[in-house]
Amino acid sequence: MTEDEQAIRSVVHTWIDATQRGDIDTVLGLLTEDALFLIQGQPPMTRSMFEAASRSQAAAKLHIEAESQIKEVLVEGAMGYLWSHLAVTVAPLGADPIRREGHTLTVFKKVSGRWLLHRDANLLGRV
Amino acid sequence: MTEDEQAIRSVVHTWIDATQRGDIDTVLGLLTEDALFLIQGQPPMTRSMFEAASRSQAAAKLHIEAESQIKEVLVEGAMGYLWSHLAVTVAPLGADPIRREGHTLTVFKKVSGRWLLHRDANLLGRV
Repeated sequence: MTEDEQAIRSVVHTWIDATQRGDIDTVLGLLTEDALFLIQGQPPMTRSMFEAASRSQAAAKLHIEAESQIKEVLVEGAMGYLWSHLAVTVAPLGADPIRREGHTLTVFKKVSGRWLLHRDANLLGRV
Repeated sequence: MTEDEQAIRSVVHTWIDATQRGDIDTVLGLLTEDALFLIQGQPPMTRSMFEAASRSQAAAKLHIEAESQIKEVLVEGAMGYLWSHLAVTVAPLGADPIRREGHTLTVFKKVSGRWLLHRDANLLGRV
């Protein structure tokens, strides 16, 4: 595995760890300025929409558990992609946990020597 | 727009045109040997699974109309990505047409000078 591929994998691990801790600033630091999230049935989510959603989720003190199985990472110059199987369980206070799982396809960009999430397609569905 | 970006856009146009005509060989010629399609609620679809599904769809003589709005193409060396809004209407014989739409995120690879579809995340849902 190359150093770049390793760095992209570690973005995913940092992402999941920070998300579980509700550390939104760390998560935002892993995104390009014009990052976009594509999700079924919704308009593309910009960085600021993502930030608003993440902060309200963190404020609600939801218990979040995420588990990522990285299936492939490939890098070319300052661009890379990764696809994974992701399972996320969110436990709202006093309600049954909601589990969603499925694949993700993510494009990363190397900006000033750091790999950042740039375009993400999230295919997770309720299970 | 660079020549590479133009070439990736023209892969999408050829793809849609060939799909509508049921010309599966042309569509397969636009895929890398190890191409993968990620779709919600299904295991990743390999090239051979895609071929089998496409040939049975073509044999059923379904009327297919697809419309793609390419939102962005970005190239780095021999890798590129494209995201789009895609609407597909399939009309089974004697049944109401089924319309699905949503976004796609696709990674392309340049192989022997030709841009080919390599990884595709399809976020289309029934509308």
